[in-house]
Amino acid sequence: MISRADVDAAAARIGGRVRHTPVLPVADSGAAVFKLEYLQHTGTFKARGALNRILAAAESGELSDAGVVAASGGNAGIAVAYAAAQLGVPAEIYVPVISSPAKVRRLHELGAVVVQTGNEFAEAYEAAQKRVTDTGATFCHPYDHPEMAAGAGTLAVELWEQTGGVDTVLVAVGGGGLLAGVAAALEGRARVIGVEPTGARSLHDALAAGRPVDVPVSGVAADALGARRVGDIAFEVARRTGVRSLIVEDDDLTSARRHLWDHYRITVEHSAAAAMAALTAGAYTPSDGERVAVVLCGANTDPATLA
Amino acid sequence: MISRADVDAAAARIGGRVRHTPVLPVADSGAAVFKLEYLQHTGTFKARGALNRILAAAESGELSDAGVVAASGGNAGIAVAYAAAQLGVPAEIYVPVISSPAKVRRLHELGAVVVQTGNEFAEAYEAAQKRVTDTGATFCHPYDHPEMAAGAGTLAVELWEQTGGVDTVLVAVGGGGLLAGVAAALEGRARVIGVEPTGARSLHDALAAGRPVDVPVSGVAADALGARRVGDIAFEVARRTGVRSLIVEDDDLTSARRHLWDHYRITVEHSAAAAMAALTAGAYTPSDGERVAVVLCGANTDPATLA
Ligand SMILES: Cc1ncc(COP(=O)(O)O)c(C=O)c1O
Ligand SMILES: Cc1ncc(COP(=O)(O)O)c(C=O)c1O
Repeated sequence: MISRADVDAAAARIGGRVRHTPVLPVADSGAAVFKLEYLQHTGTFKARGALNRILAAAESGELSDAGVVAASGGNAGIAVAYAAAQLGVPAEIYVPVISSPAKVRRLHELGAVVVQTGNEFAEAYEAAQKRVTDTGATFCHPYDHPEMAAGAGTLAVELWEQTGGVDTVLVAVGGGGLLAGVAAALEGRARVIGVEPTGARSLHDALAAGRPVDVPVSGVAADALGARRVGDIAFEVARRTGVRSLIVEDDDLTSARRHLWDHYRITVEHSAAAAMAALTAGAYTPSDGERVAVVLCGANTDPATLA
Repeated sequence: MISRADVDAAAARIGGRVRHTPVLPVADSGAAVFKLEYLQHTGTFKARGALNRILAAAESGELSDAGVVAASGGNAGIAVAYAAAQLGVPAEIYVPVISSPAKVRRLHELGAVVVQTGNEFAEAYEAAQKRVTDTGATFCHPYDHPEMAAGAGTLAVELWEQTGGVDTVLVAVGGGGLLAGVAAALEGRARVIGVEPTGARSLHDALAAGRPVDVPVSGVAADALGARRVGDIAFEVARRTGVRSLIVEDDDLTSARRHLWDHYRITVEHSAAAAMAALTAGAYTPSDGERVAVVLCGANTDPATLA
């Protein structure tokens, strides 16, 4: 459903608007490099997909004066609000009424119209869909859209150029947009491993069942990784490219996050520590000389929790 | 007193033992790149100088079984303890009795012998000197030693390779080891600007007086930038290479530090925000197209203060 060509097209499209986030060569904990993607605009990789989604919609004529709509109080919503503001496109972000005032404030600061509706995410999502039908606005799915996933994959294009190639890439999986983009970008070139906490195993259970299935969602990284069901795009790309899935515990996320602070002075959010946790908790043991890249994909976190 | 050749020699000496910290290209706030030196071992650039100091002493035959001695409960002491442990050399770190238990614990964890003596830094310093005289141990001055300064300068060698050259480099100044190393490394190639908070203006007052003079020390960055007097090496290199000195307020440090977190998800300590503050507070205004590098040199801070 998405291929390396889609990712390369995304890279060309968004190149001048994203930060080319650096890699840090590291010698310990089994990793060869960290991809410091948390240094991206908005604090997560989601800015890449959001910019690609909106720019592609503008190119294809899909984008109307109604602008864009998203349903997410989290990193995807922030990224869509940011991308829309950068491109001068109106954005409406639908979030449940229970959303934290801090998140709503951040969306406002980015210039978005925030619509608080419904007690649950599903209701906000439905209201967003209705708005799209009514107005012809462009819906920006947080992960299961080809341009969103291909945009995320552009970080792997950079990674390849920066390192001259790696053997293995570890990424966190929520709905799988990041995984799909990275796996498509590196198809036939590197092993891609999706890491999920035990309380949000959408990819793992889908691969076991042979199709995307609903999963229960809980845990310290649920706000970013807690998709109810892995996206169709991610599932297809994972199967096609032979992605492996690994599970870690919440405690492993917390320890990996602390390890990154203690040893590297890197602050990430819990979800972004999942890839690292696969190494520090022993879920993945690289062989001698294996060049392993760990994608550190987000830092929208309260640093006080590292004190 | 130190030249580019000393820095190049240091780079060759310590190359395999330091992290080659990445640069982040940035488009706003007047900066062209950040040098992410806070990702260095021990959380500051001081690891470079400490490794260079000890390795050079070993090469020249200065190093005896008595090992190394330092007087610093701060980043320089941590760096010497780290470097000594890496090189299998015994280290004694002298600190005042009032030093924070957390800092003493960190020195212990790094394998150093910690000697708590005296109520003030000056007393710990004197005790360290006496120990050196008695045992023949190698004293590792925190900034005013050629190998310490040349080691710090190696970050500028990397910066040059990573960027293909810059016009201006902004660095924080305490005792001036960092400044001396960077200015020596880039002599004749780039403008180097030393930035100090108003409560620790050792370089500024020395340049005004025409010689190093004692200065009063206070403020939020005093633990890292609060040298009583700029080093002779720094003073000489600053004069020789035409280093400019700028002063910022404590509030500017706090704002710059927050700016780095809010816009880049970078956590630094107050001292390391000084270089950035020169831009964000308007003390330095680059001209159009000027390629400005900001050295982000340390992150040994309590992240809770960013919450
Ligand atoms: C920081 C962070 N990491 C990982 C993910 C998971 O991404 P995806 O839903 O594309 O799998 C998210 C999703 O929002 C995120 O914000
Ligand atoms: C983080 C940090 N920045 C800057 C400095 C100042 O360095 P120097 O004393 O070499 O001027 C120090 C000194 O310890 C430091 O720890």
